[in-house]
Amino acid sequence: MVDPIKMEDALEQIELLLQAGDFDAAAEYIRTLHPADGAEMLNTLEPTDQAEIVTRMEPDDLAGVFEQMDGEEAAELGQHLDVQALANVLDEMEADDAVDVLGEMEPADATAVLEQMDEANTIAPLLAYPEDSAGGIMNLPPPSLRRAMTVAEAFQFIKKTYHDASEVFYLYVLDRYGQLIGVVNLRALILAEPTQTIDEIMMRDVISVRVDTDQEEVAQIFSRYDLLALPVVDAEDHLVGIVTVDDAVDVIEEEATEDIYHLAQVSADSEIFGPIIHSIRTRLPWLYVNLLTAFFAAAVVAIFEDTIAAVAVLAVFMPIVAGQGGNAGNQTMTIMVRSLALGEIDVSQAWRALRREFLIGLLNGLSLGIGVGAVAWLWEGNPMLGLIIGLAIMGNLVVAAIAGVLVPTTLKRLNIDPALASSIFVTTATDVMGFALFLGLATLLINWLL
Amino acid sequence: MVDPIKMEDALEQIELLLQAGDFDAAAEYIRTLHPADGAEMLNTLEPTDQAEIVTRMEPDDLAGVFEQMDGEEAAELGQHLDVQALANVLDEMEADDAVDVLGEMEPADATAVLEQMDEANTIAPLLAYPEDSAGGIMNLPPPSLRRAMTVAEAFQFIKKTYHDASEVFYLYVLDRYGQLIGVVNLRALILAEPTQTIDEIMMRDVISVRVDTDQEEVAQIFSRYDLLALPVVDAEDHLVGIVTVDDAVDVIEEEATEDIYHLAQVSADSEIFGPIIHSIRTRLPWLYVNLLTAFFAAAVVAIFEDTIAAVAVLAVFMPIVAGQGGNAGNQTMTIMVRSLALGEIDVSQAWRALRREFLIGLLNGLSLGIGVGAVAWLWEGNPMLGLIIGLAIMGNLVVAAIAGVLVPTTLKRLNIDPALASSIFVTTATDVMGFALFLGLATLLINWLL
Repeated sequence: MVDPIKMEDALEQIELLLQAGDFDAAAEYIRTLHPADGAEMLNTLEPTDQAEIVTRMEPDDLAGVFEQMDGEEAAELGQHLDVQALANVLDEMEADDAVDVLGEMEPADATAVLEQMDEANTIAPLLAYPEDSAGGIMNLPPPSLRRAMTVAEAFQFIKKTYHDASEVFYLYVLDRYGQLIGVVNLRALILAEPTQTIDEIMMRDVISVRVDTDQEEVAQIFSRYDLLALPVVDAEDHLVGIVTVDDAVDVIEEEATEDIYHLAQVSADSEIFGPIIHSIRTRLPWLYVNLLTAFFAAAVVAIFEDTIAAVAVLAVFMPIVAGQGGNAGNQTMTIMVRSLALGEIDVSQAWRALRREFLIGLLNGLSLGIGVGAVAWLWEGNPMLGLIIGLAIMGNLVVAAIAGVLVPTTLKRLNIDPALASSIFVTTATDVMGFALFLGLATLLINWLL
Repeated sequence: MVDPIKMEDALEQIELLLQAGDFDAAAEYIRTLHPADGAEMLNTLEPTDQAEIVTRMEPDDLAGVFEQMDGEEAAELGQHLDVQALANVLDEMEADDAVDVLGEMEPADATAVLEQMDEANTIAPLLAYPEDSAGGIMNLPPPSLRRAMTVAEAFQFIKKTYHDASEVFYLYVLDRYGQLIGVVNLRALILAEPTQTIDEIMMRDVISVRVDTDQEEVAQIFSRYDLLALPVVDAEDHLVGIVTVDDAVDVIEEEATEDIYHLAQVSADSEIFGPIIHSIRTRLPWLYVNLLTAFFAAAVVAIFEDTIAAVAVLAVFMPIVAGQGGNAGNQTMTIMVRSLALGEIDVSQAWRALRREFLIGLLNGLSLGIGVGAVAWLWEGNPMLGLIIGLAIMGNLVVAAIAGVLVPTTLKRLNIDPALASSIFVTTATDVMGFALFLGLATLLINWLL
């Protein structure tokens, strides 16, 4: 039995070998690790150490490690190898992973490597598909069965043709035109009588996706139907590839991270470690966009400068009115964005969501408005101040509810990622409307406040 | 070939049947759907319609549908069935899913149903494990091989014992003490010669988890090592269960949703549709907690009321100083929380992260501070106002960086979910410090502002 390794211990061990300059031992040590662990380890090393190690590893070992990295990381490591060596590694890799690596290289370099690859002809077609489509994450289909085969013949066929295929647990059945007509799982094949035909034991309801399906939708189908693999077909229903569940898992994590980062207004490729300049590039532009909207809100406040000069206590409660609206809007917006991402709601249900959220905003606003209004009254001893704050908060929570529903659904309708831009618009709405409601009411009723 | 169904069309069809009062046809229609689609459909129907339909469905069809729901939803639907009927359905379900349903029922009801189940003895032990541990999401292990078996014997064994086992693609090998010593995948078995022994073809490096491992860690292992199934062992290495990748996918989505909702300060079980009162309960308490911290910030502003009364324009820029700090803090905090959740960073690296974020905060703060300061200078014609705002923003971005790193790592160290509470503390820090820096500097330098 093997426990997942303790990465810290492993890192200590490799550091000792590197300090001793024993790169052969270091390369050998990485070879003995699970490729996923070897990949993480190589990624954390300095480029000079990386170069010493990867040039000492066998193509098939390195292929296993590269398969566990994302394309960008593997392409970076690949720069330490010469063209022929890199081509040898890519030849040993799963086709979809090799394509990811080539896709991250300079076009001229990628072409040079591809020319040296034995598998060039098989993987070249995969290079044509967009990275975030079913075609971009699929692998080449395994050899397919024909419906007239007997179970005994299918066993012979598998023994003959499947030595190269990686973990394949479903066998696909094609008709004479190459169209997908059924699927047999390996267990069903083992349980069947040798004389039965594939036609008798195959399942005909094969869930499949088109090659241009967005990867997020592919991941949703995996999750919904509990699949281990999903066949990919072209416009004429010909089987052109297979997406496996490990790729779907990567997509699910990637898309969740993307949504989390976008909701927090950080670019999706942010990393906690990595070049400082990259971190600034993934964050500062967002702060500037926010700043622009903050100036909108400031301009609204500026309209009421005279009111604030006369009743400075308004400045004390301003952030509360805007902040509560912002928080409530963020709640509604986040639930909408996540529900849209998981396919639990679609834009056609926006109207129903709006009515619900309006009511929730009104009730939460009533509760908070009364609460804050009472505190303000007691604090400052002025009931009118309490009333103004209470009304402004209630109103702003309704604004928050409306913006929280309409902004993400409108963006979705416009085919813009709702996670990407919703925060900006919702916060702007609650800031501007919060200040306008609060300071506007105070200006109207200023005689009661002086 | 089957496309994933269009849920809207299917819902229209079932509504027609229900309006006609033809519940037999409605039940039959749901039977023809993929269980995942049937589950979604049943979940959207009114309770009275649900009752009419589930009482008309066969136990094994209903079992398939229940397996696709979460335990709570299935337990709710199960209330429409009598004890014996529900027991029959649970008997047909995967053990882990049946346990989830029982876990969501009133203890007395669950006991009554369990007593009527044929499988009571096999699933009772599973009830003992916490819901969010490996034990809570695992299924019963499939029949295991012994190392001395030949491949031919293994085939016979599988044919005899695997008719009930669901999608199993790995075969586990136990020694005479029931300890896990190896794994054989079905494809390897098919490719082997009939006379080879299991000992010759099994892989000895089996990654496994202990039964008390947290489900989030289980999901991370699936994702890291690209597994389809993961054996679960007790303290003595005895095989006690199997977690399959579809369950890991559910956990990954569930944990991501939980983090997204907690970061937005909404309870994890929020739903876009469902009872209004539930939505208020999952959101209003968070707004009140925020309110409490907003009063802290307001109290800071109140200290400087005289300054604001004298220089009302400060109120115009107040929200910008606090807001930019809040946004930057949210960026750092979100990257930290997500990196901790994905296991890309652990708390021991907090110091390294802090140094990086400090530098990023300083540089971003410099850029924003100069930008906003210049705008304020030009807008109000007062260079000192620009300087004060610029310094306050720069300072607040450094505060944001420090809070954004220290709050999540400290919570993690205290075994509190960082996603759950980080927002509150980080926002409080940037609000309070933002106002204090800005208004404090303005008070010190007030003679330059009048």
